Amino acid sequence: MTLRNVTQAACQVSLFCTRVAASSSAGCSTSSSANFEPLGRGLHRMFLTAAVPQGYIQTWADVRGRRVEPFSIVQQEVDIVSERLRHSVSTGIPALKTAAEYFFRHGMEGKRLRPTLALLMSSALSPSAPPPEYLQVDLRPAAEHAPELRRRQQRIAEIAELIHVASLLHDDVIDDAETRRGVVSLNNVMGNKTAILAGDFLLARASVSLAALRNPETVVLMSQVLEHLVSGEIMQMTATSEQLLDLDHYMAKTYCKTASLMANSSRSIAVLAGVTPAVCDMAWSYGRHLGLAFQARLSCRSGAVL
Amino acid sequence: MTLRNVTQAACQVSLFCTRVAASSSAGCSTSSSANFEPLGRGLHRMFLTAAVPQGYIQTWADVRGRRVEPFSIVQQEVDIVSERLRHSVSTGIPALKTAAEYFFRHGMEGKRLRPTLALLMSSALSPSAPPPEYLQVDLRPAAEHAPELRRRQQRIAEIAELIHVASLLHDDVIDDAETRRGVVSLNNVMGNKTAILAGDFLLARASVSLAALRNPETVVLMSQVLEHLVSGEIMQMTATSEQLLDLDHYMAKTYCKTASLMANSSRSIAVLAGVTPAVCDMAWSYGRHLGLAFQARLSCRSGAVL
Repeated sequence: MTLRNVTQAACQVSLFCTRVAASSSAGCSTSSSANFEPLGRGLHRMFLTAAVPQGYIQTWADVRGRRVEPFSIVQQEVDIVSERLRHSVSTGIPALKTAAEYFFRHGMEGKRLRPTLALLMSSALSPSAPPPEYLQVDLRPAAEHAPELRRRQQRIAEIAELIHVASLLHDDVIDDAETRRGVVSLNNVMGNKTAILAGDFLLARASVSLAALRNPETVVLMSQVLEHLVSGEIMQMTATSEQLLDLDHYMAKTYCKTASLMANSSRSIAVLAGVTPAVCDMAWSYGRHLGLAFQARLSCRSGAVL
Repeated sequence: MTLRNVTQAACQVSLFCTRVAASSSAGCSTSSSANFEPLGRGLHRMFLTAAVPQGYIQTWADVRGRRVEPFSIVQQEVDIVSERLRHSVSTGIPALKTAAEYFFRHGMEGKRLRPTLALLMSSALSPSAPPPEYLQVDLRPAAEHAPELRRRQQRIAEIAELIHVASLLHDDVIDDAETRRGVVSLNNVMGNKTAILAGDFLLARASVSLAALRNPETVVLMSQVLEHLVSGEIMQMTATSEQLLDLDHYMAKTYCKTASLMANSSRSIAVLAGVTPAVCDMAWSYGRHLGLAFQARLSCRSGAVL
């Protein structure tokens, strides 16, 4: 199997992944999922049936009528996580506040794929929709412990986005990028110094939020993500021409650069939910495959692997 | 009181701090400590009497004869922490291994003040010297939990040094530094990209080690340090000419840039030791004052505040 075959297959998996919540439960067990067992077919069905509990933004009629769009299912909740992020990065130091807010201001948040995935996973593993009070912004400080499960899962969504944005800020300095998300990059507006420090600040804030969860297993899982991100970036920087054509190298690099964050935040959501180790494994596997497929599609589109 | 007076006073405090283990217990309660109550006179005495338990490198005769040099007390243990650091930063990615090892190779470790302080504090709070097996290098992976108290305290020493070196790597990129510790800086040898990523890698490794402690309070304490380091750097970068002459600004910036790491690692050592909250406060206060005094002396020497 060549890298081209794999990326094409991955495109199909990715389409399947991103449309899973739009399928009916009858449609879920056919074609693509049947051909991709490691994705965890059981989890997909659970993802579909539990992520959209009655009364929570979408109705069953929407699901059955295939009118559900995955991002819209938890959009309201992702919005409050974004609002909390904007609030959270405010500090008493104006220069840092401006830099840290750069990526979180309204209309600049990007796709917010990672918090969306985390919150869809939270709903998939929950017997009921989150009560209305959890759809208000949680304004407790990052270092303050939140005992409520859904709030803790929202913190994982927030931490995943903080780590992701921090890595983008550092990547832009490393690549000397001129734009990001269609506007001038932070390193271009405020200089490399501020961009490096803003990235460090977001990592620090993620670390404080993570510590406040007081759950050693999730701290370990999410701590590994940053190491993977760095390893992936170095693998990409130092790849030989032979490695660039090697599938194992591509998959290892892509897991580190993209899929680890999705896999480990999905697993963290499951760990916090207190589900069985087997379901935790499925959650990790789901995030891993989604991440690999997502990046493979980006690589196809950019022509990097075609 | 002017900034010059304070830094001169701080020099005396610093001298006192660094020589405390060289004093006899009779000398400890006089002059300097009597004038600087917040340092915690009780802790100083404890530091002196417990840090050098019989048979542990120094003898009581050495202490009484004022022949003890603080760094030598725990040098053997700091050496094994350094050895573990060199081993810990080894990964399967050669470019990263070279970069991460740059600061930890023999003869390049610098003063190793932070691990020394952490291990002196460990001994100060311990009823006995660490058994010989804890003076061998601990080769367990960073993510593996260590149940033994002294090993956990050695991990704090290691994490403190990882965070410190990561901040130096990023600082050198930010300042476009040409040298560090008398040799060409990493950013100059391997470029800014590698230096930024190596810093991130060390932060990630610190985060994994911290998570493996499975102690929520120490995770919170050490997580805050990175945020303080970033805040301090930004405070320095953006200080107005008025702020440069303002004592409160100097102290706040110096706490963030230097003292927070010492204060919070000292407190973490105390938390792991299971001592009372009052002793934890004293440990934090000791680290804070030592850090403020240490930086004030550096500022005096460099002429930054004179």
